[in-house]
Amino acid sequence: MHIGVLGTGPVGRTLAQALVDRGHDVRMGSRCAGNEVAVAWAEGAGPLASEGNFADAAATGELVFNATAGAASLEAIELAGNEQLAGKVLVDVANPLDFSQGMPPTLTVCNDDSLGERIQRAFPEVRVVKALNTVTAAVMVQPDLIPGQHTTFICGDDDAAKPQVSALLREFGWPAASILDLGDITAARGMEMYLPLWLRLYAATGTAVLNVQLRTGELDA
Amino acid sequence: MHIGVLGTGPVGRTLAQALVDRGHDVRMGSRCAGNEVAVAWAEGAGPLASEGNFADAAATGELVFNATAGAASLEAIELAGNEQLAGKVLVDVANPLDFSQGMPPTLTVCNDDSLGERIQRAFPEVRVVKALNTVTAAVMVQPDLIPGQHTTFICGDDDAAKPQVSALLREFGWPAASILDLGDITAARGMEMYLPLWLRLYAATGTAVLNVQLRTGELDA
Repeated sequence: MHIGVLGTGPVGRTLAQALVDRGHDVRMGSRCAGNEVAVAWAEGAGPLASEGNFADAAATGELVFNATAGAASLEAIELAGNEQLAGKVLVDVANPLDFSQGMPPTLTVCNDDSLGERIQRAFPEVRVVKALNTVTAAVMVQPDLIPGQHTTFICGDDDAAKPQVSALLREFGWPAASILDLGDITAARGMEMYLPLWLRLYAATGTAVLNVQLRTGELDA
Repeated sequence: MHIGVLGTGPVGRTLAQALVDRGHDVRMGSRCAGNEVAVAWAEGAGPLASEGNFADAAATGELVFNATAGAASLEAIELAGNEQLAGKVLVDVANPLDFSQGMPPTLTVCNDDSLGERIQRAFPEVRVVKALNTVTAAVMVQPDLIPGQHTTFICGDDDAAKPQVSALLREFGWPAASILDLGDITAARGMEMYLPLWLRLYAATGTAVLNVQLRTGELDA
């Protein structure tokens, strides 16, 4: 599959590499073609890897990942261009973290809105699926770094888009039973607002290689 | 132990009953002594149960639970009174949910503040410990309703208060290994901001008898 990855940071590089490793043709996009990090990645990743600007990556991909910093995502997707993205699935893995006031970061949007919803509203022709934002990059593409079952969430308004994203998650090693569809794109609020808890779990455990397993039970009769 | 429970809703009644069942002397507090629900509960719960106004419950308790609705908690604790609460452990299980705009609720405070922090700031002599707010009332006091291990969180500024709360959680059936101290009271942000995700998990699974198990792993060498 031809896949575009917007973003050259650790998340973008990890996703892009994992996709190339699974035989996908991946173009990494950044603000300007020829970005040093993207060029180095593409050179190292072999013939399936290439780079370009955001619009190049969006145009090449049949499916596109948003792996830009959350605070910059709307602008990056604007640069990618509705013309290149309309009708395509955009997997939004970004978190709207604001580090400008120091640690811990706050969210630039939350409570009655989310980054996932903002992207969907700004680009109504794009089929936005929020996914993978609740784990660190390494776990996104290698969930078995964490022993035992644990859960990953997806949400979005397009019911035909979510199975495509789930299929990619299964390629990364997520068992079908561990992928939970939380419904429409407004569930992105919950997925993004989990981040402050995630940051405290990271601090308490000393590792970012963490996730949670959803468990349910029943009330006594 | 003499314990005060502020609040007569499902959470307050569930906690109060569970505490009585474990041999604690519990006074349930509400806005006005003689509250019908509190009287009915106290009459049904036996000789260890009593009721009164918020100040009565706070005065009686060596340790006090805040199980009032989050939007009303600061006022309830004000009515309970600093004089009655100073120096005591206040276990804040409330969530600052705002249902005024319909479902799903939003949070009345989040991102750079939390209800737990607001209570601690308003009552600096009270030893606030945030706990149990991430599970439904039945699970708070009967975690084995959910098969397998799952995690509950505590936080607070008073390091001597947290072991007292952990001891009560163990009485409710939470294994010591499942109780995770997330640090100071600012971790209440993460614990409260998890609620929007919890609500979507509830919707997706169809049961409120749900929780998450924290799992960690290691990066490859």
